[in-house]
Amino acid sequence: MADTKEISEMIERRLASIELPERARGLYEPVRYALEGGGKRLRPLLAVQACRACGGSADDAVDAALGLEMFHNFTLVHDDIMDNSDTRRGRPSVAARFGNNQAILSGDAMLTLASQLMERVPEGVARAVMSEFNDMALRVYEGQQLDTEFEHRNATIDEYFEMIRLKTGALLASACRIGAMIGGADKATADALYEYGMELGIAFQLRDDWLDTFGDAATFGKPIGGDIVNEKKTWMLITARRESHGELDAILDEDLEPAEKIRQVTRLYERLRVGDRCDAAAAEHHALAIAALDKAQLAEPQLREFFIETVDRMASRKL
Amino acid sequence: MADTKEISEMIERRLASIELPERARGLYEPVRYALEGGGKRLRPLLAVQACRACGGSADDAVDAALGLEMFHNFTLVHDDIMDNSDTRRGRPSVAARFGNNQAILSGDAMLTLASQLMERVPEGVARAVMSEFNDMALRVYEGQQLDTEFEHRNATIDEYFEMIRLKTGALLASACRIGAMIGGADKATADALYEYGMELGIAFQLRDDWLDTFGDAATFGKPIGGDIVNEKKTWMLITARRESHGELDAILDEDLEPAEKIRQVTRLYERLRVGDRCDAAAAEHHALAIAALDKAQLAEPQLREFFIETVDRMASRKL
Repeated sequence: MADTKEISEMIERRLASIELPERARGLYEPVRYALEGGGKRLRPLLAVQACRACGGSADDAVDAALGLEMFHNFTLVHDDIMDNSDTRRGRPSVAARFGNNQAILSGDAMLTLASQLMERVPEGVARAVMSEFNDMALRVYEGQQLDTEFEHRNATIDEYFEMIRLKTGALLASACRIGAMIGGADKATADALYEYGMELGIAFQLRDDWLDTFGDAATFGKPIGGDIVNEKKTWMLITARRESHGELDAILDEDLEPAEKIRQVTRLYERLRVGDRCDAAAAEHHALAIAALDKAQLAEPQLREFFIETVDRMASRKL
Repeated sequence: MADTKEISEMIERRLASIELPERARGLYEPVRYALEGGGKRLRPLLAVQACRACGGSADDAVDAALGLEMFHNFTLVHDDIMDNSDTRRGRPSVAARFGNNQAILSGDAMLTLASQLMERVPEGVARAVMSEFNDMALRVYEGQQLDTEFEHRNATIDEYFEMIRLKTGALLASACRIGAMIGGADKATADALYEYGMELGIAFQLRDDWLDTFGDAATFGKPIGGDIVNEKKTWMLITARRESHGELDAILDEDLEPAEKIRQVTRLYERLRVGDRCDAAAAEHHALAIAALDKAQLAEPQLREFFIETVDRMASRKL
């Protein structure tokens, strides 16, 4: 049986050979550029492996898997416009390279191309897959909406979890469930894999927040402390605000230089141990992911290992 | 049998009562706002009437018809960002009212909502309808791409027609074909109605270009001469450039005040009779629309009148 590396290579190969229309090439050049940027290809990998674990073939799921990767990259293209981000994965973002207007239009094309790829699944599951895909897409936008709104107001821990479930969890969860549906899973198993993907996403995001403050600048790929500078409503910031009796707000109100702001907030985090506790929360959702996986009746139980390795890697990653 | 007015009212009612998720309301408020802006509702009307003409019921087609209107409005929301347009149908555009970032994100949601509505068609035609919808969407973006590229270079008449077929024709044509497919039309009739919609779109766009220069400011709704000021590559401008032996370029090179530029170019158009000939080209495509309609084997031939009235109204409209 194909191992994870072979599946990853197959996904990469198929992504590189997605056929795009010959008309209006200027529309599709940024699409190709966005897909060539690399990344973990986690979403298509989850979909293909979920399909195989439930007894289907990689071939049956691969187009839908590519559709999920196309969708993910579409959200990055539009997010980078909204966030004014010039860099993505060490290269100019699509917006920086091709301009905002082109990034809007080519991003729109990517969403439609994703939808076209999602259509290419076995007839019997096509409607259910498309319905899952569209529901998921709305949740991702809703998560982005909440994330944006939190820039201008405080958020509670419950709101933070709602936001990351929508923005990060929904796509990973649906990748698993769509793969399972294509593989012919029963509803309980498809739902168990959805829950696995959701908990994976939450653990991933908590770890991501932790890395932004406590990661190693050499391996993280982004400057350390960006979330603090932007006062991003992370688990750590929300918790520190709740527990520091006004001390966090006092620091943030001071209009400090970025480096000093990072230093003071990080010291407060250390004193309150919110870094360690954020990491512990990630570990808790890591455990919930495994517990969800245990509820899935996998037709190919040897693939359980892939899902465990994936959550291990994501919840304790260094970059 | 319901007449056009009743169908239009039904569409308006159904549009106003589209259910949107209760989560992240800030995402959906601009969607509601965009849909409330009015407009001719031409695309949903064509879809419903094509379905009925081919023997189906209005009910079978109405959700897909709403999906087409949602899609159309999505393109307007994103176009208004790209064109920096503050006004749409006499109100602030979504971008002006809610900001560019919100317009990007809510526009994305509208595309997904359109796709969800397109799914709600009778099971037997669902895949074909979704495939038609996605192909059409790409064509619309390609048309927008060409239109944008023409801002920075000259275009030929052939390129102009390619652009308006994609940008304006494809959606009207697909509205007709999707309605026909839902109504159970055979392929020849569905394709004939597609061609009708395409020719309708071309006639519509030629008339729109003509009105922008020769329309009545009181009824047109936009300032007269905007296309000339922006040197938009319309049928008239391309033809005048080809036939005026450098005279058009000489005027455009002069860096004139807008009113004077409009005056001089309009006078050149009049001398070359490109206005009349543009109108004649619209009439030609009007006739091609009727010829296409004659190829359709309508199960309900009394609905032929609706399609004739529609192209009559569009190709000779004053506003």
